[in-house]
Amino acid sequence: MVSPLKFAVEAVCPWSGARAGRLLTPHGPIETPVFMPVGTQSTIKALCWDQVEATGTQIVLANSYHLYLRPGHKLIERAGGLHKFTSWVKPILTDSGGFQVFSLHELRKINDKGVAFKDHISGQEHFIGPAESMEIQNALGPDIIMAFDECVKNPATKAEARQAMERTHRWLADCVKNHQRGHDQALFGIVQGSIYEELRQESVTAVTSFDLPGYAIGGVAVGEERALIEKTVLLTAPMLPADRPRYLMGVGTPWDIAFAIRCGVDMFDCVLPTRLARHGAAFTAEGRVSLRNARFSEDWQPLEPGCPCYTCTHHSRGYLHHLVRMKEMTGATLLSIHNIHYLHQQAAACRKAILEGRFQEHFRSLETPATS
Amino acid sequence: MVSPLKFAVEAVCPWSGARAGRLLTPHGPIETPVFMPVGTQSTIKALCWDQVEATGTQIVLANSYHLYLRPGHKLIERAGGLHKFTSWVKPILTDSGGFQVFSLHELRKINDKGVAFKDHISGQEHFIGPAESMEIQNALGPDIIMAFDECVKNPATKAEARQAMERTHRWLADCVKNHQRGHDQALFGIVQGSIYEELRQESVTAVTSFDLPGYAIGGVAVGEERALIEKTVLLTAPMLPADRPRYLMGVGTPWDIAFAIRCGVDMFDCVLPTRLARHGAAFTAEGRVSLRNARFSEDWQPLEPGCPCYTCTHHSRGYLHHLVRMKEMTGATLLSIHNIHYLHQQAAACRKAILEGRFQEHFRSLETPATS
Repeated sequence: MVSPLKFAVEAVCPWSGARAGRLLTPHGPIETPVFMPVGTQSTIKALCWDQVEATGTQIVLANSYHLYLRPGHKLIERAGGLHKFTSWVKPILTDSGGFQVFSLHELRKINDKGVAFKDHISGQEHFIGPAESMEIQNALGPDIIMAFDECVKNPATKAEARQAMERTHRWLADCVKNHQRGHDQALFGIVQGSIYEELRQESVTAVTSFDLPGYAIGGVAVGEERALIEKTVLLTAPMLPADRPRYLMGVGTPWDIAFAIRCGVDMFDCVLPTRLARHGAAFTAEGRVSLRNARFSEDWQPLEPGCPCYTCTHHSRGYLHHLVRMKEMTGATLLSIHNIHYLHQQAAACRKAILEGRFQEHFRSLETPATS
Repeated sequence: MVSPLKFAVEAVCPWSGARAGRLLTPHGPIETPVFMPVGTQSTIKALCWDQVEATGTQIVLANSYHLYLRPGHKLIERAGGLHKFTSWVKPILTDSGGFQVFSLHELRKINDKGVAFKDHISGQEHFIGPAESMEIQNALGPDIIMAFDECVKNPATKAEARQAMERTHRWLADCVKNHQRGHDQALFGIVQGSIYEELRQESVTAVTSFDLPGYAIGGVAVGEERALIEKTVLLTAPMLPADRPRYLMGVGTPWDIAFAIRCGVDMFDCVLPTRLARHGAAFTAEGRVSLRNARFSEDWQPLEPGCPCYTCTHHSRGYLHHLVRMKEMTGATLLSIHNIHYLHQQAAACRKAILEGRFQEHFRSLETPATS
């Protein structure tokens, strides 16, 4: 298969299988492991794109479902695609829309062609299946697009998980058939199978048989007990081909990222850093903190002493506390900058440790409170 | 009187009296005429300070009333003053709190010592008069502080205007007496007198008798017919000493700024650029536009072609339209950047024209639709 991506693994941790790599996309290179901030509506909430870049962001994720509804994928296509529309010049990945559509529990009907649903804004009727998802993502024009899969709701019985998995495989064939821009957009397949090792193995075999430029582990971010999910990722990631990027969808916290890297995952995304920021919370080495807390009102230290991000090099916890209390948008902006930077640093520190042959030691040094 | 400011008039337009000058403050120089964005709660809404600086901002205004209530002027004093609290290193001006307190119509009681009021948040009782205003502003620590004056509500009878004016003069004496940081904070007096030329002249005589580092024209921004206000500014500004900076409070639109400069005013502030931005509107050469308007949905031009601001050099009207429609904070940020930059450009273009001896021509070229 011809791929618009080039992926090279630069180092592997012999203890864990954690990898440091380099992914070349039509919009430039990415050092992996990499965290991808989420820009749902073609903007990372509360940030301008120069601020996104200054956090060290190498690639962002945008949501097909939201952009399909507003402003519409056709409009973005006429604008010249997401890169031109947003002015973000680095790589972009879009999801398939499946996850959002399946989240509209009361509003959707699933059949073998896809999902009929009423949108969450106007209640208008729509239909998205693998063919439609490819059409939308081809129009949006990111570097990496995702297969349209069925996200089974956790916890799921093995029979439910199998049914969703098999449909996901059939839909993947439709995605491959309908994807029109294989020359400049890489289609990633998604492995399902819930927490069942046998299903995950079966799904890996089916999905990788399409010889795609990259593979994702789906159905992990939500609803299941953490230990079971971690075990699933630990089992599934190494089943995936070593020469293709591996993407764990919708993860996560600083700890989740370290754990995913330990499993051999190269890419992850999550809304958490920006969502927490809008609620006044931040990642720090002492764990997650709420800047609303009165103990910060006269704390003139940086949010995270030593952190090189804009927020920590310019502002005190006391000032951030004031902005958050006053509900000033600037508070959300400054905390988003810090939180995104924090996850990039987490990934970069793991990458460095892998390259320097000391990932095992590094991983063990990450204590839960500091990374959760 | 010893002043912490140095002010030099560099050029005067012989036709109008419009001036280009240079004001040196404890936190650096300012080229005048200058527009001052308003950072009510110690932040310019929706902006980080590096973005404020990138718009070309030379000095910002902060509101004493808001900061007195939250987080408290004493807290800001313990933080090392507003500059340390915010990390903004350039000049700051604070208002006296008078305007906000007088705006609490139902909640206030005025006597000769000041104003008793219940705050707009908790309903708690407070008292601010000239002595308290000086204490607050001395604690906040900006470069320029304002006298506590009585803002009479327009339209006012001559008797009402005289009463407020005379109280303003008595309060100015109290301000001068109570101001403790004359060595590093310049106190500006405020001329009142509503639309009455005789009162304005009387007020100028009384206020300038204190030999202060600068003078403001108050009671202008609100409630009176525009033509009367313009006439008042046109009459009052030239009455003020030529060797001190002149500040027109709470003004204004692009046109207001040009008009104030034409009258010989050096400084102005207004919440309009940031407030309009949060409502999705922008200043352009074609007048004020709402980015919500559907006609912008597929307009891929910059908001203002040729404008060198971050917003116009990076984004299209179509993208801004989408952000505004989606209520994304980034929309407010990008429009605030443009609108503030626009007013700075308006002032800078006037300054350049004054220095080059062609202000008369420049002013006449400013047509109302482009500047209103």
